[in-house]
Amino acid sequence: MSWDQVWIDINIATMDPTSTIPYGAITQGAMAIKEGKIAWIGERKDLPKFDTLSTPIYRGKGGWITPGIIDAHTHLVFAGNRAHEFEQRLEGMSYEDIALAGGGILSTVNACREASEAELFELGRQRLNALAREGVTTVEIKSGYGLDTETELKLLRVARALGEHHHIDVKTTFLGAHAIATEYQGRADDYIDLVINDMLPKVIKDNLADAVDVFCEHIAFNHAQTKQVLTAAKAAGLNIKLHAEQLSNLGGSAMAAKLGALSVDHIEFISEESIKVLSQYGTCATLLPGAYYSLRETQLPPIALLRQYKIPMVVASDYNPGSSPICSSLLMLNMSCILFKLTPEEALQGMTINAAKALGIADNVGSLEIGKVADFCLWDINTPAQLAYTYGVNACQQVVKSGRVIPQKDR
Amino acid sequence: MSWDQVWIDINIATMDPTSTIPYGAITQGAMAIKEGKIAWIGERKDLPKFDTLSTPIYRGKGGWITPGIIDAHTHLVFAGNRAHEFEQRLEGMSYEDIALAGGGILSTVNACREASEAELFELGRQRLNALAREGVTTVEIKSGYGLDTETELKLLRVARALGEHHHIDVKTTFLGAHAIATEYQGRADDYIDLVINDMLPKVIKDNLADAVDVFCEHIAFNHAQTKQVLTAAKAAGLNIKLHAEQLSNLGGSAMAAKLGALSVDHIEFISEESIKVLSQYGTCATLLPGAYYSLRETQLPPIALLRQYKIPMVVASDYNPGSSPICSSLLMLNMSCILFKLTPEEALQGMTINAAKALGIADNVGSLEIGKVADFCLWDINTPAQLAYTYGVNACQQVVKSGRVIPQKDR
Ligand SMILES: [Zn+2]
Ligand SMILES: [Zn+2]
Repeated sequence: MSWDQVWIDINIATMDPTSTIPYGAITQGAMAIKEGKIAWIGERKDLPKFDTLSTPIYRGKGGWITPGIIDAHTHLVFAGNRAHEFEQRLEGMSYEDIALAGGGILSTVNACREASEAELFELGRQRLNALAREGVTTVEIKSGYGLDTETELKLLRVARALGEHHHIDVKTTFLGAHAIATEYQGRADDYIDLVINDMLPKVIKDNLADAVDVFCEHIAFNHAQTKQVLTAAKAAGLNIKLHAEQLSNLGGSAMAAKLGALSVDHIEFISEESIKVLSQYGTCATLLPGAYYSLRETQLPPIALLRQYKIPMVVASDYNPGSSPICSSLLMLNMSCILFKLTPEEALQGMTINAAKALGIADNVGSLEIGKVADFCLWDINTPAQLAYTYGVNACQQVVKSGRVIPQKDR
Repeated sequence: MSWDQVWIDINIATMDPTSTIPYGAITQGAMAIKEGKIAWIGERKDLPKFDTLSTPIYRGKGGWITPGIIDAHTHLVFAGNRAHEFEQRLEGMSYEDIALAGGGILSTVNACREASEAELFELGRQRLNALAREGVTTVEIKSGYGLDTETELKLLRVARALGEHHHIDVKTTFLGAHAIATEYQGRADDYIDLVINDMLPKVIKDNLADAVDVFCEHIAFNHAQTKQVLTAAKAAGLNIKLHAEQLSNLGGSAMAAKLGALSVDHIEFISEESIKVLSQYGTCATLLPGAYYSLRETQLPPIALLRQYKIPMVVASDYNPGSSPICSSLLMLNMSCILFKLTPEEALQGMTINAAKALGIADNVGSLEIGKVADFCLWDINTPAQLAYTYGVNACQQVVKSGRVIPQKDR
């Protein structure tokens, strides 16, 4: 066989969803890469003969290979930080007073409107580097801190530029309907009109978004407004997804699923009826333990029902300056087990194969199978469960993106 | 003035406990170092003239300097990991069945008994490196996974060796009375006899411990047994501290305080009466949010009472393979705010000046004052609260230990 690269002395958590073995594990495995894709994978003893003189051989020292980590829900392009209001809140100031003093999401919006693309790019780059150290190879980035046409486009351009310049793949999501801009207070329908008839066409024209998202909640946009945006996005051929049922049950999840949403995200308050709809339409459920943790929420997402209806569960960081200021994907593996009682295997599925489904890219990435893109990590661990069990000492030894071994200094 | 090094373009969170300003902050500050100590600190405009040609000048680009981070409670020298039982528990296996299958603390004890000093040293070194990246300059390490004389001494020797070879200062604590060794099941008094009459004299003879600790709890050692160990340690001139009131109120805290303990640790179930005793004896209260988080506990330590009685609150990682497998001190700043509602200033006090008190080294480190050791970090942050507010993108730009600038590659 003629390959570009061969990996041996490895165990492999393929995360192949058709495998009946936990983690789709292949112990004492081997893997061969050609033209950026997985050309062969299996047990070492079955590895076909190949030219050992001319083919680079990587030895994993008995560690584990997993698919590259995919963080399918972040807001990581933003300026400013909310440390001050974090401190005020802990010193006893009320949310109302903080909002009156200019805090909350609108402070991030103001910082984003003022920031240059170069500033936003540099901040985003530092954050991608932090994720890259942990083995992340694909990340989704939402806009939503502009709330005017110019800034929403700027945020998406920065996200696109990050994807072009960083080895991490970036999928972008237009979230113009994240909150109601100050200029539109009390005129939510007018703001939705702006989103659909001004922002969205420009986003599409410049090919700035892979998907469209809305925050459907009583403090943001109602069921009808949400449906308008998602329908317009769908009509334009974009993927859709939804922030839904985080604080209350507006039925957004079922509506989005019926419109063909890839995922519904948060869903602490989703009903069993809506879960049935997700099941019917193959919609993923994205769990965001970082927000649950940071907001010290008590309403758990209905994990048992999600399991019962076999909904693909996604785990993501929701990294953002307000409700989840933790820029770590690996920590979310741990938090989803500790806080949501996922098994370590479910957690890892949530940041590999199911995350890929939630981004509509599961044909190419998310598991290690012949023909898929060679996005993977080598970890210094004895068992895949260790990725979720412990945190702090970085076990990530190597990252390979599209068959390219990423130098340590770039992570 | 003749100095070894001068820092400018900085703001300084001195954490000086006598300051009335939050964080003891000096904005637009400057600091001068001589012979490993702080020779001058104050506002830039007041900086005395010095030889700018021969003195190295470090510019902080407007970032913040804090004292080096001190993690005053860890168990970071251990072998093995408990990922397997973590997974079993999440898959529904009971604690009893896990213990019967050889899990729990005794699996770590077995791994430590089997491990060589070299293996334990290498594991400890990797963990110290992870902490060093985050700006930690002093860490406490407990024994307690040997439960026989030979292994307890081995763990302490490794901890001492780590302190000698790593730029992080290590304070060691002998915790032979951590759990009852298998060989002594049902004979706790005999085990305590071993701790006091065999282990402790050898620990003292080889100068292996700076302090002695006991786990006082109904699942470990009772009030009388605890008192015996602490009394013997105190008589030998060692500092003492206690794991107390984590799961129930045995009154260990008050007893330890009266014996002169530097700190009592966990104390979720401590009574107001006992807190009054801490106040009377100047004992620190060590809060361990990582264990609270990992065990998904619900009983909060009585923060309001600790504030009311002005008990110095310490924040530490309790890093260990069972109840707190998170090797990150910075994350504990965040967790203590999110989970225990400390203010960011209290959290930082808990990992600087109060942590130094809990280790009996507050005369030398823990705050930035003239005459103290020059252990400090430079952070790329706008406000000290940012250290607790966010996590993931490492803001630590420089670490200085005893006046020596630690090269990036050693962190
Ligand atoms: Zn979100
Ligand atoms: Zn402990």
